[in-house]
Amino acid sequence: MIIIGERINGMFKDVARAIKDKDKKAIQDLAYKQMEAGATYLDVNVGPASADKIGAMEWLVKTIAEAVDAPLAIDAVKADVMEAGLKFHKKGIRPLINSTTAQAENLAVFLPLAKKYDALLIGLTMDDKGIPSLSENKSELALGIIAAAMEYDIPTDDIFIDPLTLPVNVAQDQCPKTLEAIKMFTMLSDPQPHIVIGLSNVSQKTLYRELINRTYLVMAMTCGVDAAILDPMDKELMDAVKTAEILLNKTIYCDSYLNKLKA
Amino acid sequence: MIIIGERINGMFKDVARAIKDKDKKAIQDLAYKQMEAGATYLDVNVGPASADKIGAMEWLVKTIAEAVDAPLAIDAVKADVMEAGLKFHKKGIRPLINSTTAQAENLAVFLPLAKKYDALLIGLTMDDKGIPSLSENKSELALGIIAAAMEYDIPTDDIFIDPLTLPVNVAQDQCPKTLEAIKMFTMLSDPQPHIVIGLSNVSQKTLYRELINRTYLVMAMTCGVDAAILDPMDKELMDAVKTAEILLNKTIYCDSYLNKLKA
Repeated sequence: MIIIGERINGMFKDVARAIKDKDKKAIQDLAYKQMEAGATYLDVNVGPASADKIGAMEWLVKTIAEAVDAPLAIDAVKADVMEAGLKFHKKGIRPLINSTTAQAENLAVFLPLAKKYDALLIGLTMDDKGIPSLSENKSELALGIIAAAMEYDIPTDDIFIDPLTLPVNVAQDQCPKTLEAIKMFTMLSDPQPHIVIGLSNVSQKTLYRELINRTYLVMAMTCGVDAAILDPMDKELMDAVKTAEILLNKTIYCDSYLNKLKA
Repeated sequence: MIIIGERINGMFKDVARAIKDKDKKAIQDLAYKQMEAGATYLDVNVGPASADKIGAMEWLVKTIAEAVDAPLAIDAVKADVMEAGLKFHKKGIRPLINSTTAQAENLAVFLPLAKKYDALLIGLTMDDKGIPSLSENKSELALGIIAAAMEYDIPTDDIFIDPLTLPVNVAQDQCPKTLEAIKMFTMLSDPQPHIVIGLSNVSQKTLYRELINRTYLVMAMTCGVDAAILDPMDKELMDAVKTAEILLNKTIYCDSYLNKLKA
């Protein structure tokens, strides 16, 4: 399971403050703790409040690189902020672009960036008409992303398709539909793309966020998800990931399997 | 979700003792607590130690009926013990026969019992050659059970197919294969049979039994299981069931969904 640690995001108050105060230690602590908890990638998002988003991204990427050897998921909507992250990313490790939509104008910006910086890429199954409700339409958008990547000689193996998870308290019927979409994505192409979900969205503003998160992640893994953006410092969540990997026969069972760092 | 409470089983020491000492209160307590925790059926198994299995089954069934209005899953291998349970079952509520295999000689005994006592029936996908490893072969046995039931005018809706879950620590590769079998069972017939698992088997002799149980149950529900034999007094397990039902859009979300008795 590919774990993308979500905590270095300016949406969180502690991170917004650290960016504002140039508090390296606070960011490096979050980087270190997430890696120790089993993260594969660290997501980096400057958040909505930063006035100088390009400067903030550059500072975050450099600050994290001083502390850990982690590949980063550069999380930005604007191409210039994205490129600032990619440009200063540690060399010899491949970054992950988070993300492009399926719209042609976005693909025309982010696929060349992926090529230029040898980055992997998350593609969201949405376009200018929004997020389709039907799995078939999501699959169509996913295929469009994969095909566009091929034109840039980016292998399908470097693409992560994200079906976009909606909150259970506002779009409950979309929860099983997203699981259906995930199942379809596993059959789109050979080799198949990675399939990623932004987990915490499903539990937005609910009372039992952690329980809902870990239950939905186990369901998504059962349907074929092999990557998730989540908080790896949530120990019960990571225990659920490790247990699901065992029960899917993806890691070998041993009695003390929970003590292993990676699931 | 149909919950079959597993605790009234002579395999457990407290139940074996209660049967031996004719301790009604101990049994009625277990019956009451399981129903309170959300059980739909109560499994009743005299266990291996009872010398007079027929007498023990009759006593258990009558003892439980004095305390609660629950339908019982009469759990016995021998037809005479099964019939003792069915005969003294509370009238006006339908019992569940747990179980028959797919072997013709077993079907010829238990299907007539189901007809005679208007009982539902669990059919295990195994025969004299054992438990098949392949989903296709399990499906074949399931279809055999459904077809045999039809000959007795027993509707498919009254049949629970059990793919037989094996322990992860001795047959790890069977865990995902059982999930595959469950998915196939959902497509066997229209209307489809219920699909049930005996949950605690998957975690036999492992260190993290409860975690493995609740993770596997969420996976099985994602694949189509709608019934499980388990310990409803395991609150975290029942919370996982309720959360999975919400995320599969089978019960309506409300913020306090965990406080509802039934998932």
